[in-house]
Amino acid sequence: MADRFQITYQVKAGSITRASEIAENIRVEQTVEMPVDALPAQGVPSLGEIVSVTPSDQSDSWIVSISYPAAVTGDDLTQSLNTLFGNISLYPGIRIVDADDSFFSGRYKGPSFGLSGLRKLLNRDEDLPLSCTALKPVGLAPDELADLARQFARGGIHIIKDDHGIANQGSAPFRERVAACSKAIREGEQFTGNKTLYFPNITTSPSEVKNRYAEAVDLGADGVLICPQLTGLESLSELAALKQVPVMAHPAFSGGYIIHETHGFLPEFYYGKLWRALGADAVIYPNAGGRFTLSTETCQAINRQMADHFCGFKKSAPTPAGGIDVDSIPGLLESYGRDICYLIGGSLYQDPGGIEHATNKFTRLLEGADG
Amino acid sequence: MADRFQITYQVKAGSITRASEIAENIRVEQTVEMPVDALPAQGVPSLGEIVSVTPSDQSDSWIVSISYPAAVTGDDLTQSLNTLFGNISLYPGIRIVDADDSFFSGRYKGPSFGLSGLRKLLNRDEDLPLSCTALKPVGLAPDELADLARQFARGGIHIIKDDHGIANQGSAPFRERVAACSKAIREGEQFTGNKTLYFPNITTSPSEVKNRYAEAVDLGADGVLICPQLTGLESLSELAALKQVPVMAHPAFSGGYIIHETHGFLPEFYYGKLWRALGADAVIYPNAGGRFTLSTETCQAINRQMADHFCGFKKSAPTPAGGIDVDSIPGLLESYGRDICYLIGGSLYQDPGGIEHATNKFTRLLEGADG
Repeated sequence: MADRFQITYQVKAGSITRASEIAENIRVEQTVEMPVDALPAQGVPSLGEIVSVTPSDQSDSWIVSISYPAAVTGDDLTQSLNTLFGNISLYPGIRIVDADDSFFSGRYKGPSFGLSGLRKLLNRDEDLPLSCTALKPVGLAPDELADLARQFARGGIHIIKDDHGIANQGSAPFRERVAACSKAIREGEQFTGNKTLYFPNITTSPSEVKNRYAEAVDLGADGVLICPQLTGLESLSELAALKQVPVMAHPAFSGGYIIHETHGFLPEFYYGKLWRALGADAVIYPNAGGRFTLSTETCQAINRQMADHFCGFKKSAPTPAGGIDVDSIPGLLESYGRDICYLIGGSLYQDPGGIEHATNKFTRLLEGADG
Repeated sequence: MADRFQITYQVKAGSITRASEIAENIRVEQTVEMPVDALPAQGVPSLGEIVSVTPSDQSDSWIVSISYPAAVTGDDLTQSLNTLFGNISLYPGIRIVDADDSFFSGRYKGPSFGLSGLRKLLNRDEDLPLSCTALKPVGLAPDELADLARQFARGGIHIIKDDHGIANQGSAPFRERVAACSKAIREGEQFTGNKTLYFPNITTSPSEVKNRYAEAVDLGADGVLICPQLTGLESLSELAALKQVPVMAHPAFSGGYIIHETHGFLPEFYYGKLWRALGADAVIYPNAGGRFTLSTETCQAINRQMADHFCGFKKSAPTPAGGIDVDSIPGLLESYGRDICYLIGGSLYQDPGGIEHATNKFTRLLEGADG
């Protein structure tokens, strides 16, 4: 690991003087967290150092870069998250916009499978997009969910994930559901001759997540879905390190970190860089134009961030979701390209021709991208 | 568990019609997450039901109550958090203001020790406030931190917690630090004859938190400190359930959920009710008047929430922190009262008379509250 790393912030302030005061607060708050004049006489090597304070392209807003000694986090990944945004999350007007490679290298490992690993599991050409859907609604029994899964597989879908709200409810206990859906998908695949991957939702209490991952694999799952902001962000890394099956990350409970223009994280940093570094093979994010609020430009930036060279990490599969239907696929292919896992949920259920038919239209459109 | 529970939201909208549309989105998004017209013909018992939409006392703002079937969460606590704020965290203009007792009862257990348990461990009268400080800065060696801890104990402090940024860094590895500080505090206590409790920070990767709790207890710690928004919120409950030592919760990384007036959680619900229900024996929150942004009224509401009758849960110890010094204690005692654990960090280090002297002034002021 490098001796130091650098974090870049966007800071709301009426003047460069005020912005510099905030920078001073940040470098103290995120390290020694005490008045500098009260530090031990022998000194401690832990304080951050302000590198620069420059105007941003937004009004009353400044870009602040601060360099930190690597010793402040040691090799503890969760402590690096704390250094990134722990106490300053309680200040208004501070947004993390970037961290340099030295922040990630050595502490973070990136995806174990990544977009190319997913394509390999699917025997899919390196230049073709992936399709994904969600099993729902919560309340159905295992055999009902399995029946839906079979129809999606017959339609040629690449990845079926559980809805993130399907956990271990009485209506479809985890073990029964995963066994039934895995079996149904194996049956459905035979109809097309193509592979369909099943990613059950394993989000549960932080200490149980690894056990549920192991259960899922035992029961025939091809990957897992997790909501890292509910289980603790490092749980994503812990699962990725197991390397048995790919891990898809879901943005539930993460909105507070990314939807405020002057607070939290720049969305492309948070989903595109941080979650990729944490090891998400695919990252579901709230797509533009649907019921969420990110702009098309931000979504494109998230996609780029997951594809860029970054500490030697594998690329993650950007998985836009929310308000996408089959008709929007051609436009999205033009806007986002092919290194994408397109997720259509609800609207596949609405097609009067049925799920298999709707899924087939969806997957054929993605093949058309090859033409 | 009751068959249904109710969640109350504050929703930003220009009209009651628009507020009702948002309510409709919430009841669907947080349950079946698909178009209602695409739900299975046999129906599913999972949809939320809008109970009421009424004007709030803020402009363009409405209070929405929605009732959910308990079956949507089952007995999975993390899934109940997902139902509370999972996908709607990605919508602007929605803030959780309350949830009824049926949401918590059966799923949440509350503190195992609570404020009265802390007082009991300290042999302290039921009507006296507690004092707390933070060991810092990161970068000191175990014997240097232990020396500080000894001085605080000699000054009569009730609880010494690690700074939340002290993890397992090379400068003070966890095991060495906890052993050294525990020993020093036992020595310091003998000077006053009063008990001082040591709460090392055990925040680390979600799957390791329980192990670190066990290590801390083995090494002589009297409690633990954890940042639940870094380890996954349910980890707080998992630790509380171990019942060996009290758990103090720290707000690092939680700011995004509580500092926005129109998004996230009402702070008194989040810290005062949710974290208490999760099992925090003491909850550190960002105090008014210091470097954070909550108002005095909000802090008082947080304090009240931790003391109110609530599902039979023990009371938590409200632990305001940030910008408190010895001189502010008399005013705070008037404003917050005695059912409080007052946390002074940095300013005790600044006293020219030294830590023991400053701590003694602090603790004597709290005794004065008895007069």
